[in-house]
Amino acid sequence: MSILVVGSVALDSVETPFQKKDSALGGAASYFSTAASLYDEVNLVAVVGSDFPQEHLDFFRNRGINLSGLQVEEGKTFAWGGRYHMDMNHRDTLFTELGVFADFHPVVPESYHQSPLLFLANILPTLQMEVLEQVPRARLTVLDTMELWIMTARQELTEVIKRVDILLMSEEEVRQYTEKASILAGARQLLDMGLKYLVVKLGSYGALLFGADGTYFSAPAYPLEEVIDPTGAGDAFAGGLLGYLSTVQPGPDGAYTSDDMKRAVVHGNIIGSFVCRDFSINGLRELSIKDVEKRYNELVMYSHFDPHWKAL
Amino acid sequence: MSILVVGSVALDSVETPFQKKDSALGGAASYFSTAASLYDEVNLVAVVGSDFPQEHLDFFRNRGINLSGLQVEEGKTFAWGGRYHMDMNHRDTLFTELGVFADFHPVVPESYHQSPLLFLANILPTLQMEVLEQVPRARLTVLDTMELWIMTARQELTEVIKRVDILLMSEEEVRQYTEKASILAGARQLLDMGLKYLVVKLGSYGALLFGADGTYFSAPAYPLEEVIDPTGAGDAFAGGLLGYLSTVQPGPDGAYTSDDMKRAVVHGNIIGSFVCRDFSINGLRELSIKDVEKRYNELVMYSHFDPHWKAL
Repeated sequence: MSILVVGSVALDSVETPFQKKDSALGGAASYFSTAASLYDEVNLVAVVGSDFPQEHLDFFRNRGINLSGLQVEEGKTFAWGGRYHMDMNHRDTLFTELGVFADFHPVVPESYHQSPLLFLANILPTLQMEVLEQVPRARLTVLDTMELWIMTARQELTEVIKRVDILLMSEEEVRQYTEKASILAGARQLLDMGLKYLVVKLGSYGALLFGADGTYFSAPAYPLEEVIDPTGAGDAFAGGLLGYLSTVQPGPDGAYTSDDMKRAVVHGNIIGSFVCRDFSINGLRELSIKDVEKRYNELVMYSHFDPHWKAL
Repeated sequence: MSILVVGSVALDSVETPFQKKDSALGGAASYFSTAASLYDEVNLVAVVGSDFPQEHLDFFRNRGINLSGLQVEEGKTFAWGGRYHMDMNHRDTLFTELGVFADFHPVVPESYHQSPLLFLANILPTLQMEVLEQVPRARLTVLDTMELWIMTARQELTEVIKRVDILLMSEEEVRQYTEKASILAGARQLLDMGLKYLVVKLGSYGALLFGADGTYFSAPAYPLEEVIDPTGAGDAFAGGLLGYLSTVQPGPDGAYTSDDMKRAVVHGNIIGSFVCRDFSINGLRELSIKDVEKRYNELVMYSHFDPHWKAL
């Protein structure tokens, strides 16, 4: 199988209270592709400028990431700069230079059309809709977004949400979009728009899974002693989630069981945890499925308790 | 068996964005006692003023809470007023009138001395130390505290931490006391002071258990659609934790297994969730062990996933 992803490839400059890294490989689609390529073939649709380093293209190719859909345009690659606060849960954007990304319109090559899984990484909802119209038969469509689009393109975002199977949002984004203080009430409102599943990302607290079938699952975070750079953790989370699902045979109706969805969210948390251990996609470079298996088994130990009620 | 608790009994005035309740039964020891009395006999040490309503005394007695150690002094009962923000995770203190609590010195009656379990609710560390000196043979000692004492009585608090078995702290308190950004590093520092277990309360995200034996456990929160008033949730959490432990036979060395400690933390989360459904201790009034069992089984379903790694 293969996974189709459309999103940004960027050069990131990140400052933490302890370190600084300039012009490193970044962008949601880079994190996602690097993560998902651990599980399966990835078909990338994105744009970079003529300044984009050859070494990153080589890196993608070496991981089995197809670049037929990567447009290389005269000009500068999308550049983003951010600075993290002491608690690493908050950051300020220092600059955003769209470069060639400003005129980007995704084109899904014919050779990608058989990808059963589609991830719409965080870009303008109108561009996400352009992708959905190009691949109407994707078996599973997963959507990410951000505060900016909730604020500035709410109507367009709403149309995209109505067309996808799974939505990923942070807790703040759920509150902001639904205008509900309660995450449970907000989740119900989102599921009522036609989603099969909603995944609420809680950062260092893990993630919640809500299903239209009534599924509720609280996935533990993998505990980290040290966070070097959390940039891309949410995109890598999505890569782990879709990566795992790409290895699973869905039911005859194309649906994944809630047990598979739970496992997928756990994979997402684990892959997200590896990203935080280094700048850029470096935390994923040397990662093997054996490393994921180790953290999976640890998470079972860290979060399971006696399933049998003990009479008092 | 029985559980000894020393702490505040107060009259609370609470405002939320939606409702307001004046002079209701409050105070850490009230919440703790009401919660723990669901499991076992409770021996209460506290002080109230001559204005303390008879109905609350009757309520305590009806729940099997012994009041031999409750001092009734001429004057006003400790009164506290607070206002919650829209997200219910933050509150402002509007007033604190110590009343008879200002001159309180805990006296543990002889009849309480056989209590194997001791909970030192959140009061001045010097008063907590007075209690430890009166009951040096308690089998299990559990300590709660707050930001105020970390700021103003750090040395005294440190002495108490060194003498107890289990410490309860919020995530912010761990960071504040240890001056470590990482909860894992902070937890290690606290365990190194001689604790058997540290429980880090994460509010609506559940709780973490750290053991000197290497135990690490992330307990899921019980998901709540609506929070009416979170006051006392942490004290009720402690009541569920010690309440459950009081029903368990520890090993010959007096130690509880990590499986029992995990179950105890889950009980704490469940009891804390019930408090939030109403003002004051009202969410616990009609509670039965059957209700706790129902949420326990739900939490198993909400947080457990396939314990067996699936080869990819």
